[in-house]
Amino acid sequence: MTGWVAIAGLGPGSEALVTPEVTAALAKATDIIGYIPYVARVAERPGLTLHPTDNRVELERAQHALELASQGAKVVVVSSGDPGVFAMASAVFEALEERREFAATDIRVLPGITAMLAAAAAAGAPLGHDFCAINLSDNLKPWDLIEHRLRMADRGDFAMAFYNPRSKSRPAGFEKTLEVLREECGESRLITFARAVTTPDLTLRTVTLAEASPDMADMRTVVIVGNAATRRVGRYIYTPRSAL
Amino acid sequence: MTGWVAIAGLGPGSEALVTPEVTAALAKATDIIGYIPYVARVAERPGLTLHPTDNRVELERAQHALELASQGAKVVVVSSGDPGVFAMASAVFEALEERREFAATDIRVLPGITAMLAAAAAAGAPLGHDFCAINLSDNLKPWDLIEHRLRMADRGDFAMAFYNPRSKSRPAGFEKTLEVLREECGESRLITFARAVTTPDLTLRTVTLAEASPDMADMRTVVIVGNAATRRVGRYIYTPRSAL
Repeated sequence: MTGWVAIAGLGPGSEALVTPEVTAALAKATDIIGYIPYVARVAERPGLTLHPTDNRVELERAQHALELASQGAKVVVVSSGDPGVFAMASAVFEALEERREFAATDIRVLPGITAMLAAAAAAGAPLGHDFCAINLSDNLKPWDLIEHRLRMADRGDFAMAFYNPRSKSRPAGFEKTLEVLREECGESRLITFARAVTTPDLTLRTVTLAEASPDMADMRTVVIVGNAATRRVGRYIYTPRSAL
Repeated sequence: MTGWVAIAGLGPGSEALVTPEVTAALAKATDIIGYIPYVARVAERPGLTLHPTDNRVELERAQHALELASQGAKVVVVSSGDPGVFAMASAVFEALEERREFAATDIRVLPGITAMLAAAAAAGAPLGHDFCAINLSDNLKPWDLIEHRLRMADRGDFAMAFYNPRSKSRPAGFEKTLEVLREECGESRLITFARAVTTPDLTLRTVTLAEASPDMADMRTVVIVGNAATRRVGRYIYTPRSAL
């Protein structure tokens, strides 16, 4: 029996956004590994072992997946959104680099709808021109680098999507982000807060940077900042295809 | 009978990446509008009218969708990938801005798997840290702005994904892109060419910028340039979660 690891994206929340490819992988799996709320989205069945784990143990989780696959298990590592965007795929390759005894493992990454694309779709089309995706968590990089990236992104007039904008352990980071953005982009730039996208709890709010406050974001929020041309049309927010 | 417009992403090619949400919208549609090869992916059935159109008529297509919906049609505008990423969603909102008589139209954007995420998944996880998406076509923006964005993206040490890297009408642009990248990122930076992702024609090739040549890309290729930390592990390419 040959084991494998599939790192699968469950999308941002709605089951209607789970791809058939991911559904098929889940149906073949013997083991599901991931953060508790994502594993909870997979239905239990005979022959399937669920391994839910807490946050911040990505590397241990990845090593566990490689170990199980080496014993013949068919392992699906579940991420929300897309596994390649601030999620488990990089952690699995980091583990593979550390544990060369697992070099021959059959690893596949199964893409999913990442949160920024679902948030953009809910708002209209704010990412319709060149854009950046930035993880605002400073767990794995220094704040100075985040600030530098915000400035470079604005100087290139990129729209920006932010993941992990704010958490209880980092209450000040998003306030500093808004200060940098006001300085670089000006007070009238549009910013969209999309919380719990594609779920019944969805809230969607677009304001100017002058009106934005840190408490508009939490860990379930994706934040999208427009470029200089981003504007409203009716209830929608969009960025034109042409540059200003 | 109330019409609507759904702008739907069919994903990069494989039917296994079409979301159930998009499949359900296609099943309810009376009219499908889009570029010929994308409309060709929708099965004909009684009660469904297909409106395939040639490239470069995005705005006319968008206006047609709004007109049909105003007459009660249930219109799905099909894009490949995600409709909000260099695709039809922004064109529909541009048309809505021009034609305010359609302001009340029920418009929804249905996200899809965009090409860069499928390409990244096929390669490993090269977009596993902060990244940018840049459309290299200079149809709708000047080359100077593209060059400026490439430089800002590198100075922020973003990984980069390029859409529309090269076409017959723009043979020189991608050569200039490679020159700018070598200057900014250095010769040893990894660059991945992913052609026809998720189809049986898939080709995947990773080289250094020193080894990269313009003919490695065409209009079916998504190009991903790593950040300074992007590296190989076995046959995979990935960008670690931590900054250098």
